[in-house]
Amino acid sequence: MSKEPIRIGLLGLGTVGQGLVRLLQKNHAEYVRRLGRSVIVTHAFSRNLTRLRDCDLSNVKVGDDPMYVAKEAPVDIVVELLGGISPARELIIAALGRGKPVVTANKALLAEDGDLLFDAARKAGVAIAFEASVAGGIPILRVMREGLAGNRIEGLAGIINGTCNYILTRMAEDGLDFESALAEAQEKGYAEANPAFDVDGIDAAHKLTILASLAFGIPLELKGVATEGIRHVTERDMSLARELGYRIKPLSIAKRRDGAVELRVHPTLVPKEHLLAKVDGVLNSIIVHGDAVGPTGYYGRGAGGDATASAVVADILEIARQPGAPLSLPPLGYEPNSVQPQPIVPLRDVECAHYLRLQVADTPGVLRAITSILAELDISIEAILQKEPKGREDASVAIITSSVSEQRFNAALEKLLALKFVRPGSTHLRVEHFHGR
Amino acid sequence: MSKEPIRIGLLGLGTVGQGLVRLLQKNHAEYVRRLGRSVIVTHAFSRNLTRLRDCDLSNVKVGDDPMYVAKEAPVDIVVELLGGISPARELIIAALGRGKPVVTANKALLAEDGDLLFDAARKAGVAIAFEASVAGGIPILRVMREGLAGNRIEGLAGIINGTCNYILTRMAEDGLDFESALAEAQEKGYAEANPAFDVDGIDAAHKLTILASLAFGIPLELKGVATEGIRHVTERDMSLARELGYRIKPLSIAKRRDGAVELRVHPTLVPKEHLLAKVDGVLNSIIVHGDAVGPTGYYGRGAGGDATASAVVADILEIARQPGAPLSLPPLGYEPNSVQPQPIVPLRDVECAHYLRLQVADTPGVLRAITSILAELDISIEAILQKEPKGREDASVAIITSSVSEQRFNAALEKLLALKFVRPGSTHLRVEHFHGR
Repeated sequence: MSKEPIRIGLLGLGTVGQGLVRLLQKNHAEYVRRLGRSVIVTHAFSRNLTRLRDCDLSNVKVGDDPMYVAKEAPVDIVVELLGGISPARELIIAALGRGKPVVTANKALLAEDGDLLFDAARKAGVAIAFEASVAGGIPILRVMREGLAGNRIEGLAGIINGTCNYILTRMAEDGLDFESALAEAQEKGYAEANPAFDVDGIDAAHKLTILASLAFGIPLELKGVATEGIRHVTERDMSLARELGYRIKPLSIAKRRDGAVELRVHPTLVPKEHLLAKVDGVLNSIIVHGDAVGPTGYYGRGAGGDATASAVVADILEIARQPGAPLSLPPLGYEPNSVQPQPIVPLRDVECAHYLRLQVADTPGVLRAITSILAELDISIEAILQKEPKGREDASVAIITSSVSEQRFNAALEKLLALKFVRPGSTHLRVEHFHGR
Repeated sequence: MSKEPIRIGLLGLGTVGQGLVRLLQKNHAEYVRRLGRSVIVTHAFSRNLTRLRDCDLSNVKVGDDPMYVAKEAPVDIVVELLGGISPARELIIAALGRGKPVVTANKALLAEDGDLLFDAARKAGVAIAFEASVAGGIPILRVMREGLAGNRIEGLAGIINGTCNYILTRMAEDGLDFESALAEAQEKGYAEANPAFDVDGIDAAHKLTILASLAFGIPLELKGVATEGIRHVTERDMSLARELGYRIKPLSIAKRRDGAVELRVHPTLVPKEHLLAKVDGVLNSIIVHGDAVGPTGYYGRGAGGDATASAVVADILEIARQPGAPLSLPPLGYEPNSVQPQPIVPLRDVECAHYLRLQVADTPGVLRAITSILAELDISIEAILQKEPKGREDASVAIITSSVSEQRFNAALEKLLALKFVRPGSTHLRVEHFHGR
């Protein structure tokens, strides 16, 4: 085996890019032990050449022409850490077209245009790898594509957005409201100045799209993901959920159901003894349910420069064993012609238990009216909790229903909200019981 | 790519072997989607040809000559599920010598003679794979060898023997004593008639040996594992540990320390809020600490025919992509000439916190005498709990010390046990606080 170093062309010197440069230097000897040769960044593109870098770039040619790094620079592997759709997409396609394998952490691009990238890689006969795109330091893509390949994956559920998990954790722990918890997350660098991408569930939807493709061997179906953010969760819901025996967690769920698949991202009540209920702060965790192995769980840091860089290195080391060849494993773990779409269950047909908090005037007959409407629509009540008003507040009635279709639940909800004693500010969330999972 | 099926020669038709036959049949279509060709068992060896099998063997040539299956039968991959050292070792070496890749779940053989097997595979230029040897359905070997390859692994700690975890869980939950919990485990098929292999820590030591080799790139060091079973844990220790804020779990621990490594298997007090404290019953779980990613966690079924078979299939599918070639990744994830021994920290020099339960006569001055001895040896007390005697029992004094070397702790222990008011039946266990892990 050649002892020449593997040369990396790096697109993007942000948090993860700098983390990668640092990690390749710090663990240089360890990688030589693993690979029999060293790995060095020789060329890099940065959007801002004058910004101070928290890493040693003295042996790196840093320039302002990304297309040069992707196409012309004498490198063995191109690493794309720019994020966003364009120009990342064009750069990756250009690199693949020149026969250069690509490692990327770009979940948005993969979820939107992954099939295009995979095609380009296949035509060029080189590898594209993207472990860093989901759940940072948890090697969940390898787990699903290789480790659990003996299973028919029945479903998965995970906390895959650390920002949302941090915000909900702070609300649960210290009774903060959403805005205060978000402000704290921004202060600590866990949330962007524009937090919409995280708190509205878009980032999680990108990641779930990738996970579902690997789980079921289906094309990337971003448009099929039913997505709901966490802005409407209140501290009152946190405490009611707790009293009912649940925690509210930002879950992303993919499930097989009757020849179709469910794909959804939403804040979810999770039984308090379930492991996902205990994963707090910015940590990520994913439960994967295989038919042979049953439920298996994974947790760790989902973001941050070092954790994400460690996933990038895992891909680099794998490709570096055979830099000129395509990976023997296809990107989704299924033969390309076996990757076939499956129907997506529309949200209205999704069946699950629901949590409903109604704000009501404190008058007689309230519970009777509510329970009558639910009974008419054949919706059973698994748990109910009425909290007396404090001071000038309305009373809260919290209900956990049995499993019921979204459509039927919404029909009941419409009638309930029309009751004359129901006040503004009611909330509705979904519940996941992980039966057998 | 050839569309000929991949033919498996199966050595052993016990629980896992039958699970493998069933799984290959059940998920046949799924594997064709993943691999582009099918996987079938064509030949098998069974020790007992007349025993009824819980799987369909109508298309399998089952015989009583294992060496025929290993060397002569027209198969592409040999799967060894016999367990034990001999004849498994000779069969694997014979298969490799004929250029046949081998998949094995044989942790005892790997821990004892893995280096020999790896050498034979390298010389023959074919693959040997063993995901099923540790933690059944959790793909922990792939995680460490590939997923976390970007990290310098600092250490790991895990519950990797389901029998012990089941016994300790039952003791903790229902106050059973060790013998009753063991009997229950045997009734349910979780423990063998001769349970020594599990409850004395030998099985866990085998698995830890494999994990440590993958974590640190060191040769298999079974003799370096300090091993202690769970027979001396009592229901009294369970309840005292709980009152002190801990659970007692059967941990296997591998850590780097000052250029050396610690390898140990023993029942361990774990803080009750740590995720390992919450993994109950026969479930396995492992925490791996990487320098870049920090702590990451994995859990799932550690044993059982289907879970273990799913790990065997993962190896089969990987090898089946290039049946004639060695895997591009060496068995331990490190280049063979980089696999170098490191000093093993002798148990006497291991530093950790200790739990000590002394049974004492209920006389004045007991605590003063105990605390004086500990103070003389410069051992701090982190927590202390005295329980009054019930009926004719002695009083119990439970102590959690600060971190201290085994040697120093033992010196104190010797003096304490010599005190005239200390009665027989005292116990000593180690404590793991996972600082930063």
